[in-house]
Amino acid sequence: MADDALVVFTPSGKRGRFALGTPVLTAARQLGVDLDSVCGGRGICAKCQVTPSYGEFSKHGVTVREGALSEWNAVEQRYKDKRGLKEGRRLGCQATVQGDVVIDVPPESQVHKQVVRKAASSRAMVMDPATRLYFIEVDQPDMHEPTGDLERVQRALSEQWQIEGARADFSILGRLQPVLRKGNWQITVALHRDHTADAPRIVEIWPGLHDRGLYGIAVDLGSTTIAAHLCSLEDGTVLASVGVMNPQIRFGEDLMSRVSYSMMNPGGAAEMTTAVRDALNTLCADLVTEAGVAPREVLEMTVVCNPVMHHLLLGIDPVELGQAPFALATSASLALDMSDLEIDSLNTRARAYLLPCIAGHVGADAAAVALSEQPNLSDDLVLIVDVGTNAELLLGNKTRVLACSSPTGPAFEGAQISSGQRAAPGAIERIEINPETKEPRFRIIGVDMWSDEDGFDEAAATSGITGICGSGIIEAVAEMRMAGILDARGLIGSAEQTGTPRSIATDRTHEYLIHDASATGGPRITVTQGDIRAIQLAKSALYAGARLLMDEMEVDKVDRVVLAGAFGAHISPKHAMVLGMIPDVPLDKVFSAGNAAGTGARIALCSLAARDQIEATVHEITKVETAIAPKFQEHFVNANAIPHATDPFPELAKVAPLPDVNYNTRGSETGGRRRRR
Amino acid sequence: MADDALVVFTPSGKRGRFALGTPVLTAARQLGVDLDSVCGGRGICAKCQVTPSYGEFSKHGVTVREGALSEWNAVEQRYKDKRGLKEGRRLGCQATVQGDVVIDVPPESQVHKQVVRKAASSRAMVMDPATRLYFIEVDQPDMHEPTGDLERVQRALSEQWQIEGARADFSILGRLQPVLRKGNWQITVALHRDHTADAPRIVEIWPGLHDRGLYGIAVDLGSTTIAAHLCSLEDGTVLASVGVMNPQIRFGEDLMSRVSYSMMNPGGAAEMTTAVRDALNTLCADLVTEAGVAPREVLEMTVVCNPVMHHLLLGIDPVELGQAPFALATSASLALDMSDLEIDSLNTRARAYLLPCIAGHVGADAAAVALSEQPNLSDDLVLIVDVGTNAELLLGNKTRVLACSSPTGPAFEGAQISSGQRAAPGAIERIEINPETKEPRFRIIGVDMWSDEDGFDEAAATSGITGICGSGIIEAVAEMRMAGILDARGLIGSAEQTGTPRSIATDRTHEYLIHDASATGGPRITVTQGDIRAIQLAKSALYAGARLLMDEMEVDKVDRVVLAGAFGAHISPKHAMVLGMIPDVPLDKVFSAGNAAGTGARIALCSLAARDQIEATVHEITKVETAIAPKFQEHFVNANAIPHATDPFPELAKVAPLPDVNYNTRGSETGGRRRRR
Repeated sequence: MADDALVVFTPSGKRGRFALGTPVLTAARQLGVDLDSVCGGRGICAKCQVTPSYGEFSKHGVTVREGALSEWNAVEQRYKDKRGLKEGRRLGCQATVQGDVVIDVPPESQVHKQVVRKAASSRAMVMDPATRLYFIEVDQPDMHEPTGDLERVQRALSEQWQIEGARADFSILGRLQPVLRKGNWQITVALHRDHTADAPRIVEIWPGLHDRGLYGIAVDLGSTTIAAHLCSLEDGTVLASVGVMNPQIRFGEDLMSRVSYSMMNPGGAAEMTTAVRDALNTLCADLVTEAGVAPREVLEMTVVCNPVMHHLLLGIDPVELGQAPFALATSASLALDMSDLEIDSLNTRARAYLLPCIAGHVGADAAAVALSEQPNLSDDLVLIVDVGTNAELLLGNKTRVLACSSPTGPAFEGAQISSGQRAAPGAIERIEINPETKEPRFRIIGVDMWSDEDGFDEAAATSGITGICGSGIIEAVAEMRMAGILDARGLIGSAEQTGTPRSIATDRTHEYLIHDASATGGPRITVTQGDIRAIQLAKSALYAGARLLMDEMEVDKVDRVVLAGAFGAHISPKHAMVLGMIPDVPLDKVFSAGNAAGTGARIALCSLAARDQIEATVHEITKVETAIAPKFQEHFVNANAIPHATDPFPELAKVAPLPDVNYNTRGSETGGRRRRR
Repeated sequence: MADDALVVFTPSGKRGRFALGTPVLTAARQLGVDLDSVCGGRGICAKCQVTPSYGEFSKHGVTVREGALSEWNAVEQRYKDKRGLKEGRRLGCQATVQGDVVIDVPPESQVHKQVVRKAASSRAMVMDPATRLYFIEVDQPDMHEPTGDLERVQRALSEQWQIEGARADFSILGRLQPVLRKGNWQITVALHRDHTADAPRIVEIWPGLHDRGLYGIAVDLGSTTIAAHLCSLEDGTVLASVGVMNPQIRFGEDLMSRVSYSMMNPGGAAEMTTAVRDALNTLCADLVTEAGVAPREVLEMTVVCNPVMHHLLLGIDPVELGQAPFALATSASLALDMSDLEIDSLNTRARAYLLPCIAGHVGADAAAVALSEQPNLSDDLVLIVDVGTNAELLLGNKTRVLACSSPTGPAFEGAQISSGQRAAPGAIERIEINPETKEPRFRIIGVDMWSDEDGFDEAAATSGITGICGSGIIEAVAEMRMAGILDARGLIGSAEQTGTPRSIATDRTHEYLIHDASATGGPRITVTQGDIRAIQLAKSALYAGARLLMDEMEVDKVDRVVLAGAFGAHISPKHAMVLGMIPDVPLDKVFSAGNAAGTGARIALCSLAARDQIEATVHEITKVETAIAPKFQEHFVNANAIPHATDPFPELAKVAPLPDVNYNTRGSETGGRRRRR
């Protein structure tokens, strides 16, 4: 009988001969098979579960007989009794090789788990977080060979995990001694590794084994909305998502009015910094509560945002971003402490990673969109539009990527809209208007049926019908146009012109009534002429940005459009096209990607390799400055109408032209940056 | 005529041929000649001053003619007019090579200036501080090639100073943009470099050139006294020194009573941490005020202290240091932020370096003494005694070094002494007692004459005569013994026995009167029997520690003794010998080194190489634990007497033995640690 045996791992196919008695985990490590372990082979974490296969494997040229692995042992039995173990599973650190064997590593036992994203592209994401857990056994102090407890922890990390030069965060020092003694010289450390050359940092310690519970928060910090997701750093699962309005709105609706606020008010930038940090702190606390996790188990954060938000979050006066040459204080990615951002609702030793900015007006949010949608890997020419108060646009393919930002204003996020609101339960997110009857029906967030379906009123009773969110207002305006309630210039016709009593005269204009619960003390939800104007300005800015990129690329059409937006619900490609938000392209070439910036933040949260990747990619993106391009103005003016030509659908009802009206709308603020120069 | 010329630099002797027109600074850099520059060759900092020599230099084989350097230029003239320039000096960045030349680099133009220490050994110290100034010219932002301002600063450091990968401290980010613009894209950065692999850190920035003003503080944090020196990081000069009592004294006089306080009182460790940090903060503020420097120009700190002080400063409960195996939380050196230590009276971005500890009872103060006195380089066997509330002892030579600490209690620092006080103006630091008349004379700190000299009273009027400091009490007790006022057991004789009315009966013992100003409301300064007892306990502990090291080294004599102490004045070797503080050795082999721990702190403040050196050295020092050595007790008991045999001087007057007295002295506390086990 041979004293070694062939071991084949699936699905990797890695194989090698090992002495009989070699633990499966050891064999896996020597072959470089991706098999997880937190406890380092002590039979307590059970992360190294494997499934041996028995029988003939002609593909591998192996016959696996009973007894190819050592017998089920007491450690495995104890684990099974305590925590359960699937039938057929063995612990890789306990089972030893006794004969030729084929061993399957199930996906959940891999360190670098692949996580399939739910986004349009369904791209797989590899788990490779900056912070991981390591269980160690630490030598006890010895008077005859005096070393500090920390130095013996470092030695254990080196000997047991081949991790060299780990350092302890300062505030770990005071806790190290009691934790070591409580754990009887066995502890679990959370180790943060930078993707730079920095030494690994011990950011948390637990007595004994702590093999579950390590989380991170991905933040998409927009001008109007702050969205954040609490994710498991084990498998990338989103455990809780929360969104709030950015409290900086009180200093100015759009970016440039906030820059102005800072310029006009001494201490104004600091006020805005405090406001956004407070909001972020509260948001994190809410996330932790909602997900039911311990704050100290949250050890990572990633933040994506536009350059003005970026500077205000960091406590940098954004004044330079308000004037040419729009110089960023720093454009590279940043690795920060929670204390730098004054966030104390998570583990204070958690690390925050800010994605790099592309340029003065194209920020870390655009970088995140690029990370999520990867135009730089696209075969066809793709236009990616991330809709927000400041829209980020990327145009390119694998040969070249261009980026710009466009000051659309907050209308697309439901702000500055008379019945507008943030995407939250009760908000109208989809609308259809019957072109014959001109009657609307709609859906609200949190209810899975249309408003004209049976049972809707009962289902909607919890949240009520509260307003219209960003995706809802886009649909509403497009549907109004398609139903002949709006003309090409964007004017709402009278009841007489449109043939529906839902068109109601106000002062000198008209509004369209969607829902009226005022009789019972509820809201009266309408689309006003001012709302239409705000949407027109926003969509013109967006369209002009896209055209500018196309000019720069010297193309007059694109192959594919990806619509993304931070405001929760997906944007309807059809309605975006009707509205003229995006250049003409076949409808089946328009995709909705949800919150691509937020997705980018989550990818960076879960993967060091992704951080490397986006840092390399941003240097290859050519930035186009809308603020100083004369063509931008031209495109903007030309894009104001909601013309028939942009409508790929049946002829709109002809509406008699309406008299011109002097619209003194709030929409004028949304073009602030553009017009101030 | 040749198109190149020979350039010889003195004193280094480095030489090479350079093209005519090469600036002297460039030639120096290419040859690796140590020639300073902050402005990088722009003719504004004038750190690169050199002196050309003319004539025949047979030694170098060169004849230097007039015109060997380019003519005096406008930049040099402007500097001379503005700030002055010594006759014969040229600016190395302005003067270019025009012919064979011999160029002298004066000491003050060297980067690595040698500073001669004033301590006994007069060892030269090389300036090599962790933080240095660099003047840079930064590219202006360009919309077409967008990079952040910080990234262009980093590029300037790389291109102009070959410093790669510098990072900015987080709080620099918010100031970078205005400073760059105020300096018209010329700034000076203070760069902190670790001696580890960490990236250099930008810790301060100034608009334009800031070529003067960079300071550090060296702290010797003792159990009883905190001494600190503010030093120039350009040349190591001490600009101000301040000492205060350690406010932790209210929690316990010696180390072990502070550990007990922490064990007995929940939150006790945190209270002591706050107390010492507050004191350090105030001390730093005082130093900055006294030296008249701007707090933001103080960018370095080094701290030496014993392990208990070390842990309490760091916010670590010292409980483990109170019981075997005396495990330190960490023994390695530490690089900290000022915020870690809650010090806000200096530049908040300043970095603090704590020297490594040797073992649980042998701390960073012992490491500092080793750095200052370098027993590991000694040819003969040297015993170094650093006297304090906790004494550090080092014994060794270049083959082997042993270290231990000994709990002497605070008597040697003037605490727990009836008329004791900290070393400060007005404190008696030296005493002589006439063996015939038994009359004392003394000197006080701040007055340069003896108390029996003419004019003393006037000179002493400012401070008054306030008490006895550590070195004073050592001399007083030894002098009392030599004058026959004390017997070998340490008992003060009566007026009758001693023959002087200065021996005054109290309750059941006697005291010796040194100075009495009570008639005019001033102090009455005596040495009491309790004082003698405290000094006896302290010196016995010290002597026992020395003996223990000698046992371990298997020697019964040493070649040389170095006495060091934190309490200001130097210890008198003669009196230390009489008292029996140290083993017998010829008097000319006893040296007084002043505050060796403080000197070690200053050396580490001024030199990265020194930090490397001591970190390597501590691993080679063998630590001896007094607390568990049975021989220590034995030596301690045997050392209690002040026997004739230890007196290398004329026979003491014979004193009739006195009856035994039950001394219920406070001295019992000083042996606390020893006796609690």
